[in-house]
Amino acid sequence: MPNKELGGAGLRGQSAGTTALCTVGKTGTGLTYRGYDITDLANHAEFEEVAHLLLIGHLPNQQQLDSYKTRLIGLRGLPQALKTALELIPADAHPMDVMRTGCSMLGNLEQEQSFDQQVSATERMLATFPAIICYWYRYSHDGVRIDTEDHSEDSIGGYFLKMLTGQSPSALHKQVMHCSLILYAEHEFNASTFAARVCASTLSDIHSCVTAAIGTLRGPLHGGANEAAMAMIQDWKTPDEAEGRILEMLKNKDKIMGFGHAIYRQSDPRNALIKRWSKALSESAQDAHLYAVSERVEAVMKREKDLFCNADFFHASAYHFMNIPTPLFTPIFVMSRLTGWAAHVYEQRANNRIIRPSADYQGPEHQTWLPIEQR
Amino acid sequence: MPNKELGGAGLRGQSAGTTALCTVGKTGTGLTYRGYDITDLANHAEFEEVAHLLLIGHLPNQQQLDSYKTRLIGLRGLPQALKTALELIPADAHPMDVMRTGCSMLGNLEQEQSFDQQVSATERMLATFPAIICYWYRYSHDGVRIDTEDHSEDSIGGYFLKMLTGQSPSALHKQVMHCSLILYAEHEFNASTFAARVCASTLSDIHSCVTAAIGTLRGPLHGGANEAAMAMIQDWKTPDEAEGRILEMLKNKDKIMGFGHAIYRQSDPRNALIKRWSKALSESAQDAHLYAVSERVEAVMKREKDLFCNADFFHASAYHFMNIPTPLFTPIFVMSRLTGWAAHVYEQRANNRIIRPSADYQGPEHQTWLPIEQR
Repeated sequence: MPNKELGGAGLRGQSAGTTALCTVGKTGTGLTYRGYDITDLANHAEFEEVAHLLLIGHLPNQQQLDSYKTRLIGLRGLPQALKTALELIPADAHPMDVMRTGCSMLGNLEQEQSFDQQVSATERMLATFPAIICYWYRYSHDGVRIDTEDHSEDSIGGYFLKMLTGQSPSALHKQVMHCSLILYAEHEFNASTFAARVCASTLSDIHSCVTAAIGTLRGPLHGGANEAAMAMIQDWKTPDEAEGRILEMLKNKDKIMGFGHAIYRQSDPRNALIKRWSKALSESAQDAHLYAVSERVEAVMKREKDLFCNADFFHASAYHFMNIPTPLFTPIFVMSRLTGWAAHVYEQRANNRIIRPSADYQGPEHQTWLPIEQR
Repeated sequence: MPNKELGGAGLRGQSAGTTALCTVGKTGTGLTYRGYDITDLANHAEFEEVAHLLLIGHLPNQQQLDSYKTRLIGLRGLPQALKTALELIPADAHPMDVMRTGCSMLGNLEQEQSFDQQVSATERMLATFPAIICYWYRYSHDGVRIDTEDHSEDSIGGYFLKMLTGQSPSALHKQVMHCSLILYAEHEFNASTFAARVCASTLSDIHSCVTAAIGTLRGPLHGGANEAAMAMIQDWKTPDEAEGRILEMLKNKDKIMGFGHAIYRQSDPRNALIKRWSKALSESAQDAHLYAVSERVEAVMKREKDLFCNADFFHASAYHFMNIPTPLFTPIFVMSRLTGWAAHVYEQRANNRIIRPSADYQGPEHQTWLPIEQR
């Protein structure tokens, strides 16, 4: 029987399946991956350790981590047909459309032929997604064909920064990328992950599942919050100006991005973790005002609305201090969340029933057919 | 509160929203589009009338239908960059991967910039999807670059057959395509439509929604049933052989595709409608045995398991009699269901809450972090 109370309300609070991957808002600081607290992971792990945890099922020892990273490094080169396809996409395309298309195209060139290949197909995506977005970005914006077979950086975050800038990133920047990619890796049945599971439930291939998830993450209610936060704060030159603008926006009931959360009630555990790095980057980048502006926005929102920063707000300044163009913020989210999406696809496949809910009909009663000449 | 009884079981029977588009298994012969019985639509309408009903909201009068069809005809040409991308996809790719990628690529070249453009973006997809699959198919298989700006056929089904074969299709074949595209156009919250709505609920663009839906339809539990039915019957030369093989499969508990349905209990109203055309095509194609084989399979399944044919079973022989290669059956489903997907996206956008269910956690309790050298 349809549950009328919940029907139509975005399935909020309704269980749509089981998972062993993640808890949100339940124990410890409120976010765990396979039982590990996000604070421990973000403070101590490399992103590849967390990818291994989510995708292989346990934290690796040193030898396992080394071998995992070596494998991913070896998978970096983009197929020529994929590079040619990316060259066809204009500079004013939406970067998430590029990611979606790049993933979909990869699925044509290297099809997952059976579920036995799900892990290797995922590793190939993990290895290539940084280059997919950077190849298109550098070609369409600068006319440069980057060499994606670059092995000089041993981490996915470092490789992304190298592909984007052509320069070897600093140790600090690489460390921040580890933290950022860990924070965005997994978050239970969020909309993009749920889209991936719906797709997986028809026993479709993993590129279809990830393509669906990318398209879903693209929406401004989901993946775009850190970009929107950056767009909001980027022109504010002093904390006092920021305070005035925020108060004005609150008065106008404008939506202020990067605050509050559908599930967390008191705070988002990811905020303190990325905020610390935003501060360190601010010092390293000799930032004159953006970090101070961000802190003031945080304070005003707390004071005025009792709202807390979510994972996205200090990500905006952190990415900005690393000279990452704002339109590429959400593609970084893709590089990270791919681990959660794929782990959920594996789970769905292992205990599958097609996801096919019902709907409450609110349309017209029986209509009598009229031949076209009588309409 | 999560509903434990329903949790995890594919949301079966759980309402996930409201719709005015479709009822399945409720009134009349069991399937209505905006209140119109599927039997009336399939027996009397052109597919473009039904597309107008679903997407514009009402059945068109003659002038509206003429102008709708003229508009769709004018939107047929593929952008050069899309054609070039399709040429990069090898002949052994999965046709649904091609559709998914073609749709995604179109979204890069002609982005839906605001929801005001949702109808025109849909019309462009309606007009181009037949050529997307045929351009790739003919180029990769025959080395031919077809001219997609062909206005000689005034219907989507006729245009598809013309693009596929280069020949003007017969009146019978065009009529069957109208019926087939109408039967597959819409089916409430099936998995691919639900994936489109999950994507739409983040306020993503319509190409992301349709791309997600294509990837979801690709799964063998959803869109692939008519292809699987064709693969099953294609080598059976007589009804008696078919009967023996089916009995053997039933004994082995093999899955027999094209029978039964998640919602319909007594019969699928679409079966009688397409079966009639399969018979007419069989006569016209001077078929020696395939229709007879299909009828025997239907009779044996009824007798042995009390199972009825669903929409897919007689679609297999019908498409085969029109010389459509089996791997292109599901892409035809895409050309049709696009109307339902898009109409659901419009509905979701008009009364949106992000679709974000919960999950039942069955993973490990709190895990203590161990530094890598201690693992």
